[in-house]
Amino acid sequence: MKKIINNPADVENEMIEGFVAAQKEKVKRLGNLNVILRKNLNPNKVALISGGGSGHEPAHFGYVGFGMLDCAVAGSIFTSPAALPVFKAIEEVKNKKGVLCIVKNYSGDVMTFETAIDMAKDEGINVEYVIVADDVATQNSEIGRRGVAGTIFVHKIAGALAETGADLKSVKEIAQRTIENVRSMGMAISPCTIPASGVASFELSEDEMEIGIGIHGEAGIKREKILNADEITKKILDEILNDLNYKNQEVAVMINGMGATPLMELLIVNNFVQKYLEKNEIKIYDTMIGNYMTSIEMSGFSITLLKLDEELKKYYDAAADTFALKK
Amino acid sequence: MKKIINNPADVENEMIEGFVAAQKEKVKRLGNLNVILRKNLNPNKVALISGGGSGHEPAHFGYVGFGMLDCAVAGSIFTSPAALPVFKAIEEVKNKKGVLCIVKNYSGDVMTFETAIDMAKDEGINVEYVIVADDVATQNSEIGRRGVAGTIFVHKIAGALAETGADLKSVKEIAQRTIENVRSMGMAISPCTIPASGVASFELSEDEMEIGIGIHGEAGIKREKILNADEITKKILDEILNDLNYKNQEVAVMINGMGATPLMELLIVNNFVQKYLEKNEIKIYDTMIGNYMTSIEMSGFSITLLKLDEELKKYYDAAADTFALKK
Repeated sequence: MKKIINNPADVENEMIEGFVAAQKEKVKRLGNLNVILRKNLNPNKVALISGGGSGHEPAHFGYVGFGMLDCAVAGSIFTSPAALPVFKAIEEVKNKKGVLCIVKNYSGDVMTFETAIDMAKDEGINVEYVIVADDVATQNSEIGRRGVAGTIFVHKIAGALAETGADLKSVKEIAQRTIENVRSMGMAISPCTIPASGVASFELSEDEMEIGIGIHGEAGIKREKILNADEITKKILDEILNDLNYKNQEVAVMINGMGATPLMELLIVNNFVQKYLEKNEIKIYDTMIGNYMTSIEMSGFSITLLKLDEELKKYYDAAADTFALKK
Repeated sequence: MKKIINNPADVENEMIEGFVAAQKEKVKRLGNLNVILRKNLNPNKVALISGGGSGHEPAHFGYVGFGMLDCAVAGSIFTSPAALPVFKAIEEVKNKKGVLCIVKNYSGDVMTFETAIDMAKDEGINVEYVIVADDVATQNSEIGRRGVAGTIFVHKIAGALAETGADLKSVKEIAQRTIENVRSMGMAISPCTIPASGVASFELSEDEMEIGIGIHGEAGIKREKILNADEITKKILDEILNDLNYKNQEVAVMINGMGATPLMELLIVNNFVQKYLEKNEIKIYDTMIGNYMTSIEMSGFSITLLKLDEELKKYYDAAADTFALKK
């Protein structure tokens, strides 16, 4: 394992310290918990919380700020946070408007958030949650699809509506509508290594790739011979387009790097995406390209398509001022 | 070589197509040249051009937009563009206010820009240039220090002053002042591979690192046993702090990923940077963390420190709206 770190046991703490130091005008840490909050919480808006295991940086703490999240809770790498810090986060951001938790669909994350939400409700806190499940690679999984990079669109759109002072019911509804209209799928040409284990999450030969990876270093649903960028991208787009009818619709596109993918490659992928969507009579409203939800230093990418309507477009375009996304 | 590309010969063209497609409201391409322009050029401001070899994405085309560059010219990977496209770029953006070229200090880039500028002057175009030379690792080199990530600060500050309608002399002066106050140094734990060659730019064992790398895949000035993040960061900071007196000054910090470095590691580096600068009585005005000037998929980072004064702070903070940097 070759990494620029200190003690593997300190990775989560040191990166959070490093993040808060860089963003100290905008965010703060809750005690010594791995909980990042907006420095100036606005009590007159629904508070949004997301979280999950670390290793997906800039998700989720990079999205704490105006127009997106109020709080992010980080577990250890690829491990759900415990219910207690999530409960403490809810307590910290609670206000008369209520709290919405945005949870990615993984058994651990769902259990953690449900437990914390039960604890909060016992204290009379008005808190709801939505579960993001956008990964079409896992459509046949027992626990349902995984939540992956589409989660960022949920942060963006629910976050923008929340800033208007909308009530909890409306913010939850638009988050849910975003979830229903978003689909993602990913691939990798190299794995990642959890610092504490020191072992690569899978092994691939020089001519192999994983299709349908998750964001926790897991191998994909299929191992195949590597193809060229256009062929790989077509394969992934076909899975997404077969899953939801985007024809004649406007979409927001996200080409997401998994952590170690050079921007050059994401741009080459995008070059095909633009032409292929056009050929399929899908109108591209906007395209985001970058590392939005990663798996440490995995090399690969995911594509996310969000079907937009006029209201979603409005909140997609609204101002955001966070470390990882500014509008 | 394992990459997500099509034909290696098409990499530059396809990535530029992919970039322009994603940013089509804001940028355009000049014919089929690797020249990216703002879509709506403002004839009432000094036009800023930068460029150099490809492989450093998002530099430089990611900085074309309000508050930064008007135009970027890309060569082949790690290869200076020819003088002709640079000349055509100058011709395209020229206006009554004049043109400033921001050139990184490499023999090829300097020769290209000087030739193009001579051609432009022969046509009566009012064009000047500055040379960025911020890399303290190469202070003893014959051609002088290399220009690396500090170039982004020159784009930002000269770009902001240019937006105010300032004259060419003033814009060149502030660019020069930024150059005089900026220092960088980098390291890598893994090399990169130029698609057309297919061969890694250097080889390192599992326990080695390169200190003092450039941005063209070259090895560093020293190969050493890998250290932990804090030790590596201290080593780099000491070189920078020995080179320019930052004591009791305010600085902008850039922790720049070389392409494949996970954000997690950049944040861990920043955690030490913040503490070490404070200990050295240097005041951090702002910190930027991300992939600003890369070497394809090299894994490593560079640190840049810009000593600020009140005027530089004003233009550092001014609005910018580009793919890679928004303020």
